[in-house]
Amino acid sequence: MVKQTPSTRDDYCVFSTITTRWFDNDVYGHMNNTVHYQLFDTAVNGYLMEQGLLDFKSGPTVFLVVETGCKYFSEISFPDVISAGIKVIKLGTSSVVYEVGLFRGDADEASAEGHFVHVNVDRETRQPLVINEASRKKLNLLIQ
Amino acid sequence: MVKQTPSTRDDYCVFSTITTRWFDNDVYGHMNNTVHYQLFDTAVNGYLMEQGLLDFKSGPTVFLVVETGCKYFSEISFPDVISAGIKVIKLGTSSVVYEVGLFRGDADEASAEGHFVHVNVDRETRQPLVINEASRKKLNLLIQ
Amino acid sequence: MVKQTPSTRDDYCVFSTITTRWFDNDVYGHMNNTVHYQLFDTAVNGYLMEQGLLDFKSGPTVFLVVETGCKYFSEISFPDVISAGIKVIKLGTSSVVYEVGLFRGDADEASAEGHFVHVNVDRETRQPLVINEASRKKLNLLIQ
Amino acid sequence: MVKQTPSTRDDYCVFSTITTRWFDNDVYGHMNNTVHYQLFDTAVNGYLMEQGLLDFKSGPTVFLVVETGCKYFSEISFPDVISAGIKVIKLGTSSVVYEVGLFRGDADEASAEGHFVHVNVDRETRQPLVINEASRKKLNLLIQ
Repeated sequence: MVKQTPSTRDDYCVFSTITTRWFDNDVYGHMNNTVHYQLFDTAVNGYLMEQGLLDFKSGPTVFLVVETGCKYFSEISFPDVISAGIKVIKLGTSSVVYEVGLFRGDADEASAEGHFVHVNVDRETRQPLVINEASRKKLNLLIQ
Repeated sequence: MVKQTPSTRDDYCVFSTITTRWFDNDVYGHMNNTVHYQLFDTAVNGYLMEQGLLDFKSGPTVFLVVETGCKYFSEISFPDVISAGIKVIKLGTSSVVYEVGLFRGDADEASAEGHFVHVNVDRETRQPLVINEASRKKLNLLIQ
Repeated sequence: MVKQTPSTRDDYCVFSTITTRWFDNDVYGHMNNTVHYQLFDTAVNGYLMEQGLLDFKSGPTVFLVVETGCKYFSEISFPDVISAGIKVIKLGTSSVVYEVGLFRGDADEASAEGHFVHVNVDRETRQPLVINEASRKKLNLLIQ
Repeated sequence: MVKQTPSTRDDYCVFSTITTRWFDNDVYGHMNNTVHYQLFDTAVNGYLMEQGLLDFKSGPTVFLVVETGCKYFSEISFPDVISAGIKVIKLGTSSVVYEVGLFRGDADEASAEGHFVHVNVDRETRQPLVINEASRKKLNLLIQ
């Protein structure tokens, strides 16, 4: 599922703006490879909360991450401002596979891209549950 | 140096906007107390870089942190957007004491406020050095 | 409450061992000032959990942080192994003030020391509650 | 390259012990998916430093991350202690592909496993360089 060449902004549906932080930079003066995943989490969960698909405090179901991956094409570093694009590339019975692209400033090519697999689970038992129709309808809008 | 009541936006000179992240929230569903310090670092160093007072990649001097503190007045949580206000409360020979306030959304009262003490050092030897006149002039503008 | 000179190991009651991580180091090649607070959180809450004073998943009360501070005496950097010493310096009706010292490897002097103020609150309402006698008894053991 | 079932400790060559931290746990009370990558970084770079294959402060070459991935099999949460196993699964001209497994406490099955691709680059130009014979010899020992 790993990309070999960077996508462009056209390849994504929905964007959010994320500011970088001083301590995103590691000893090499660029954003540490683990921070990209913080931005993936933020872009995906932020969208789900905004759309009413996730209520992490009191909803009966939540989405847990079962697989992630990232390809780093070029460096990002503080104080870059990032646009994080998301789309759904597979909508299963209880799982959703997202693709996320991180774009620096006005760049049209992604600096990094990853995938992010969510499973819809019961908050208490953490057993997988079918994604309901209302959620499925909204997630379908993220398929290009 | 710890504040007992929250300041308002009027008490600060310069602001930057910082987006929160999914993983800023800890098990209590609010921003973990350590993240506030990441925002302090970002607000202060971001301003220094923007003003040409810090070049962390190749400048002969850098600012190292020797003391920090924070008072937490009210909860911040993802997806809040934060305005971080900064001001200088003491400008010494080689050190600068900043106060930083974090304001949620449009709130006029700070959710948290801290102080942040920087010492100007030689990049290699890490020995304190006098802050030069050009820098001092710019830092003086942050004293209210 | 800020220390001017480093304490030694004798000044602390209880220690835990914490390993550092690659990404604790920032662009200056040393542990970023915000990571020290992650270690404070870990040392204090780890001890509380071990002693049965905190059950963050289902206990009726939890401890929230209302104030923190740190003085940085000397650099820590990955791959250092840290001993984190804790003690209680004030035990109030509903609050506890801890002091935490971070010691590198076999060093007898602290590399950094901080304070950490916890308030005992109701998990749901987040209103302060009196610390019960059983907890008070155990916390008293941390006063030197 | 993503694993479908967890490996056991036998599948790894070299282990390091990593302590978890309070703030590794996210709102779901388990280790956030991004922290696993911090542990991968720590296990791999820690081993390279210990073996004299990486000197991040002054070496002429460093290893940069170009691709990572992780499969999460079961939850890890603070205060778990982790054994991180590493092995090399591909040793190219200028790149190394590692597999890393995270084992909780005494568990024999990995809670999470990932891959981690390093490229050997010139510290200044960040252009890929052939991995020298001395390093290649040592990395070969990590192939099972």
